[in-house]
Amino acid sequence: MADTLISVDLSESPLTNENIHNRWHPDIPIGVWVDPGDEFKIETYDWTGGQIADNDDAADVRDVELEQVHYLSGPIGVTGAEPGDLLVVEILDIGAKEESQWGFNGFFSKQNGGGFLTEHFPQAQKSIWDFHGMFTTSRHVPGVKYAGLIHPGLIGCLPDQKMLDMWNTREKALFDTDPDRIPALATLPDGGPTAHMGRLKGEARDKAAAEGARTVPPREHGGNCDIKDLSRGSKVYFPVYVEGAGLSMGDLHFSQGDGEITFCGAIEMAGWLHLKVELIKDGMAKYGVKNPIFKPSPITPKYDDFLIFEGISVDEAGTQHYLDVHIAYRQACLNAIEYLKKFGYSGAQAYAILGTAPVQGHISGVVDIPNACATLWLPTDIFEWDMMPNADGPVKFLDGSIDVPLAPDL
Amino acid sequence: MADTLISVDLSESPLTNENIHNRWHPDIPIGVWVDPGDEFKIETYDWTGGQIADNDDAADVRDVELEQVHYLSGPIGVTGAEPGDLLVVEILDIGAKEESQWGFNGFFSKQNGGGFLTEHFPQAQKSIWDFHGMFTTSRHVPGVKYAGLIHPGLIGCLPDQKMLDMWNTREKALFDTDPDRIPALATLPDGGPTAHMGRLKGEARDKAAAEGARTVPPREHGGNCDIKDLSRGSKVYFPVYVEGAGLSMGDLHFSQGDGEITFCGAIEMAGWLHLKVELIKDGMAKYGVKNPIFKPSPITPKYDDFLIFEGISVDEAGTQHYLDVHIAYRQACLNAIEYLKKFGYSGAQAYAILGTAPVQGHISGVVDIPNACATLWLPTDIFEWDMMPNADGPVKFLDGSIDVPLAPDL
Amino acid sequence: MADTLISVDLSESPLTNENIHNRWHPDIPIGVWVDPGDEFKIETYDWTGGQIADNDDAADVRDVELEQVHYLSGPIGVTGAEPGDLLVVEILDIGAKEESQWGFNGFFSKQNGGGFLTEHFPQAQKSIWDFHGMFTTSRHVPGVKYAGLIHPGLIGCLPDQKMLDMWNTREKALFDTDPDRIPALATLPDGGPTAHMGRLKGEARDKAAAEGARTVPPREHGGNCDIKDLSRGSKVYFPVYVEGAGLSMGDLHFSQGDGEITFCGAIEMAGWLHLKVELIKDGMAKYGVKNPIFKPSPITPKYDDFLIFEGISVDEAGTQHYLDVHIAYRQACLNAIEYLKKFGYSGAQAYAILGTAPVQGHISGVVDIPNACATLWLPTDIFEWDMMPNADGPVKFLDGSIDVPLAPDL
Amino acid sequence: MADTLISVDLSESPLTNENIHNRWHPDIPIGVWVDPGDEFKIETYDWTGGQIADNDDAADVRDVELEQVHYLSGPIGVTGAEPGDLLVVEILDIGAKEESQWGFNGFFSKQNGGGFLTEHFPQAQKSIWDFHGMFTTSRHVPGVKYAGLIHPGLIGCLPDQKMLDMWNTREKALFDTDPDRIPALATLPDGGPTAHMGRLKGEARDKAAAEGARTVPPREHGGNCDIKDLSRGSKVYFPVYVEGAGLSMGDLHFSQGDGEITFCGAIEMAGWLHLKVELIKDGMAKYGVKNPIFKPSPITPKYDDFLIFEGISVDEAGTQHYLDVHIAYRQACLNAIEYLKKFGYSGAQAYAILGTAPVQGHISGVVDIPNACATLWLPTDIFEWDMMPNADGPVKFLDGSIDVPLAPDL
Repeated sequence: MADTLISVDLSESPLTNENIHNRWHPDIPIGVWVDPGDEFKIETYDWTGGQIADNDDAADVRDVELEQVHYLSGPIGVTGAEPGDLLVVEILDIGAKEESQWGFNGFFSKQNGGGFLTEHFPQAQKSIWDFHGMFTTSRHVPGVKYAGLIHPGLIGCLPDQKMLDMWNTREKALFDTDPDRIPALATLPDGGPTAHMGRLKGEARDKAAAEGARTVPPREHGGNCDIKDLSRGSKVYFPVYVEGAGLSMGDLHFSQGDGEITFCGAIEMAGWLHLKVELIKDGMAKYGVKNPIFKPSPITPKYDDFLIFEGISVDEAGTQHYLDVHIAYRQACLNAIEYLKKFGYSGAQAYAILGTAPVQGHISGVVDIPNACATLWLPTDIFEWDMMPNADGPVKFLDGSIDVPLAPDL
Repeated sequence: MADTLISVDLSESPLTNENIHNRWHPDIPIGVWVDPGDEFKIETYDWTGGQIADNDDAADVRDVELEQVHYLSGPIGVTGAEPGDLLVVEILDIGAKEESQWGFNGFFSKQNGGGFLTEHFPQAQKSIWDFHGMFTTSRHVPGVKYAGLIHPGLIGCLPDQKMLDMWNTREKALFDTDPDRIPALATLPDGGPTAHMGRLKGEARDKAAAEGARTVPPREHGGNCDIKDLSRGSKVYFPVYVEGAGLSMGDLHFSQGDGEITFCGAIEMAGWLHLKVELIKDGMAKYGVKNPIFKPSPITPKYDDFLIFEGISVDEAGTQHYLDVHIAYRQACLNAIEYLKKFGYSGAQAYAILGTAPVQGHISGVVDIPNACATLWLPTDIFEWDMMPNADGPVKFLDGSIDVPLAPDL
Repeated sequence: MADTLISVDLSESPLTNENIHNRWHPDIPIGVWVDPGDEFKIETYDWTGGQIADNDDAADVRDVELEQVHYLSGPIGVTGAEPGDLLVVEILDIGAKEESQWGFNGFFSKQNGGGFLTEHFPQAQKSIWDFHGMFTTSRHVPGVKYAGLIHPGLIGCLPDQKMLDMWNTREKALFDTDPDRIPALATLPDGGPTAHMGRLKGEARDKAAAEGARTVPPREHGGNCDIKDLSRGSKVYFPVYVEGAGLSMGDLHFSQGDGEITFCGAIEMAGWLHLKVELIKDGMAKYGVKNPIFKPSPITPKYDDFLIFEGISVDEAGTQHYLDVHIAYRQACLNAIEYLKKFGYSGAQAYAILGTAPVQGHISGVVDIPNACATLWLPTDIFEWDMMPNADGPVKFLDGSIDVPLAPDL
Repeated sequence: MADTLISVDLSESPLTNENIHNRWHPDIPIGVWVDPGDEFKIETYDWTGGQIADNDDAADVRDVELEQVHYLSGPIGVTGAEPGDLLVVEILDIGAKEESQWGFNGFFSKQNGGGFLTEHFPQAQKSIWDFHGMFTTSRHVPGVKYAGLIHPGLIGCLPDQKMLDMWNTREKALFDTDPDRIPALATLPDGGPTAHMGRLKGEARDKAAAEGARTVPPREHGGNCDIKDLSRGSKVYFPVYVEGAGLSMGDLHFSQGDGEITFCGAIEMAGWLHLKVELIKDGMAKYGVKNPIFKPSPITPKYDDFLIFEGISVDEAGTQHYLDVHIAYRQACLNAIEYLKKFGYSGAQAYAILGTAPVQGHISGVVDIPNACATLWLPTDIFEWDMMPNADGPVKFLDGSIDVPLAPDL
């Protein structure tokens, strides 16, 4: 039996837990140590640290304090790990906490970060997803049921000071190109009271908090990649930058679509991971690795019948963009939403499905100037009903009486 | 037995074939007609119309005349098809022409269109791929062998005048933002001598040629989507804009990776398609369809063991970009190339593999500001050797004596 | 959260637990009730009720008391279920008990039941398998690792008296054709002291024990089918014979190959199931169902690269049998064992792999007189090493220093 | 381009073609030779040599001359092949002959060989299947459509005299246990006029014909295995018994279910194969190979949603048999047929589906005395309609106006 090295109590604030942190900094002390070859478990909060409740009111999503995120469990030290090594992490299993068999999906208000389709869904909305063993359903989105492709949205090792400085420099440069933009172009170190630097205290804490990188973006070390396929059963090779590696993780998702388009985003949950670690000495140079690489799991849900939607890089106003995959994928998503509405779903329900179900987003063509072509792969087996086109036209399966709760702020 | 409605003779110029065209225009006459429910075959040239030869000299790729492309077979009329319908096309089979059991992959010179990694591979290079039944190998890229995921890179219906005008307007607007750029931001109608308007002749031909859209980008009708999964066995629902639909296609690929990153691009070949057509009357409105949608084939190669590479939207110079999936995917591709080089491949060979093998490109995260995260899924079963990382480090399987031919022009 | 309706304490004898039984009889009282639509959990012993220990001595497998098996949890009543209905059981999840993260595989002595290859492996042997999250490995069988395809070996509803009588009559008739055979042709009701009739006591218990069918074979109600694909995530339609249905189950397997050829047999474990039940009223007649039918899980391990071995119905002595699939499959298994021995496995290790890994056994041809043809599909991804044939011949990966413990009795 | 080494003319009798034979004997001369590493094509008749026509009359199936079968193309010599080697055959592609885009499935009369369910379907019946590129449909079995899993039902190398003698001895011994049985227990050498010994003539022909083994059963060399997964794209390792190997094949199937239960049996067709051969010297001993082994194709139809039917070894009369997989599979098939009849199919249509569609037959349990458990996996995606059970009961999609033609002889 694997020991639980980091525990979390969902009834207490993550700010009181010394094995939690929410910024990246090399000075965050490693609190627990393991050896190569060890198996162990750790627990995690949901990414917001418990700000969102299992109810039908989206006010908590509207009012979420994003400066708190993401609450990570770690850093975990691996004896013998040195800069330049690859830390091999086998994710042997992941689950929701026994007392918390539910998750949430939200659209943030455009005032508070928004999401991929924030121009179309500018207000805060929330759907709750109940877990039934390996499956999930939502009382706010009838007619769909999925097996979970459970994964940590965020996982990686501590940066060293040089890498941290590089992150801060380049992100500040981008931010400065439009500092008043809402939402902002980047989230910068803020040193504020909610910067949780683990067991670092006093001046050392304040210095680290002032320069600690936010956990929002994915970076060289992995971090907030939100890759749905980095799931239970996968084997990941992480770059190591500091002695002991300092592995941290959190932001567990029960299920998510490629792109995590709703931003909040996946079906977010608190839970636990069962891990095993090994080292490849000097692996970064040996294999030319800059960002993590991974072998996906042998055990994932089989949703392999699809209806596929195309999108090109012409935006909603008809303006032509140059090979812009971001816009092309947005069009593919909007096309899928329009399609689903014909069967009775509200736009918000369709958006929630694309964010939470194991949809695939493929970069199909990126060279045929001036249009990128992206495809959104909608798995058809997640629906209770037959959603394929036919000569008779679509059947409205839903009457609109149920929708995703909305909390206005505009 | 299905009749062959359009034949091509690879020993003759496509310009002499009345059932071929290389521009999009509603006035291009429909030459062959079928009824809903019909099965039929058509033949196609490779997209360049035979400009590239099966040899070890990349000069033809360097000197290719891109104003000629793409040579399409069609338009095919479907009786009863009206604007607003969906044309349902079942791709019952596709193959290479019996006398032409090979294909090519090329990198265009940066002077002549370039490709996804043109800054890294600025000169013309060419690899030749031989077909062995369902499989392909290349004398220029040892150690890999794939079953073909054969598909038309380009397929769609004729636009009406209104849609054509919209295309031309928006692409011209983009082009005009940087008219001297090389490569250009968009390819505009040119009315030149190589504009092949099918059986349209004289003044009517000249007028149509002058405003006929180039076939390069994917657009609302589908067109040059280069979606590898729109393969033999798939069922596609195309928007119809003109009476009779006017379905055309070409640019057959024996195999391709997501993104078709080498631009020329896939394993390009001449061949034939076996098709069946049906109609969904008024289907565009019924299903809210703007771009084509499709159901992929039940019969595709099983390459489902992967090594996955991550990329983020920080470019090669270290500059931070905002949620730019194009850059993120480029980084993932470059990471994969660096990895493959450790096993002895040249950069050009690795690039050719990413362009021709059934790699997947996923839009993994598009909301975690400021970094998009894209993943490149490299199928491991295409390699003769074990390419997974291990504690011993990579083995050099290749000694560099073989490479992809290059024809300099810089 | 689903409630646990039946608990088991692994430190206590199953004979003391009123929600356990080990014979089939309509008089066994239903102890717990649920409604259609309910979700709930139940716990189970391993099939032997704890007779086998996690150690390196096969004496417990040699000396196992088979008259005790199988210990089942139930019967569970479903309100409204009537004879002729179909009971729809969704297996939402299954797991090992937290305190018991291991399982066992054994070959019974030929004196005590034997197994599929008992002539080749006549003595008792035992391998222990440790669970690592979703995966398992054995200290007795190096070089293999599998994700679990976890399933109940035994599940079904109580028979009514008429069906019970039919079972007893036909099995007695077979037994009587060779009553002295070892192993016996069938296990008949024995009424002995280890017949556990749940909460039935006194005379009623004795009467039921005397005629209660043994749990060994699969029958019309399902029962001991040992179908590896009836796993977590599957949806099963069971015939109902008595008021309330009376669903019971046990004999959990972490992993098993088609045929469960080692008899003891799979990786046997104690654990829990999370279930949901529904009814199809009069479903047996509506759908013509005699034996259970099921839809397999959307989430199963992906072991889809195989090396396939053929076998025909000529036995080890060279005698020709008529379309005998049993013999053909035995030959395919023996062929696979010979193959694995070339890589250094002992015969017992190879046999244990075929019994525990998700191998497939296909009935490939049953009409080409006089030979049946069966195929054994060995998944290659379960091995640490490359097990495919090549021109150089096999590499011996194992030196024979480790083997499966044996406890002699012959 | 691969050369066609053996051609067949479907308008001429196979008895006139010197590269065809229908018995196994070491003296059959090798007519064409290839080298290791060579690619080549060969053509084949359908297994009956053209006795069955594309019409709606089953008389030809009723009156088929089975002493003629199977017409094989070969033997093909491989230079350097010696007894004890493994001949590695890559099946690079298979197809129907261009002029013969159809196949047949038949039930033989019980007077003439019968089939797996001959007691239930004792009379001759025939269904015709039209090919539509990669797909097939039948005018006699509405509502189903499958992509072809095309394979040679029969392929293997010539036996040496010792092996031939062993075959003849053991099969005669079985035959002699019930020499008057109809259908016979085995088909023995007959030396009759339809024994086609290739280019062997005169006395040598007569001698070989008198002892040449019939091609009906699978044997050590492979032969008539009827394994649906030994399909285009697979790689097979065949034992070699004679100098030059002497590879022959035929009996092409467009599609077939596990067991080939209708005997005639699959969708039978004439066609061609594209092959590549290699040798593993002394491979039989190196790898302990007695029967062929193979690696299945990376490109097969994806029919992976199933409804699974169980069967146990209690026969239709209620008699208990001991671990008899043959009977268990028959019960699973009969259960599936009863299920399909509820949706409107006739029994014969359902039987034809089980024989021709890519159904799987698994040996699920073979140790739980006295019942074997077999499962029949019915792919649900081959049906136009939703065939899953639900609370409302089945819908009759067919009105019985169409059925499989029958030609009485009883």
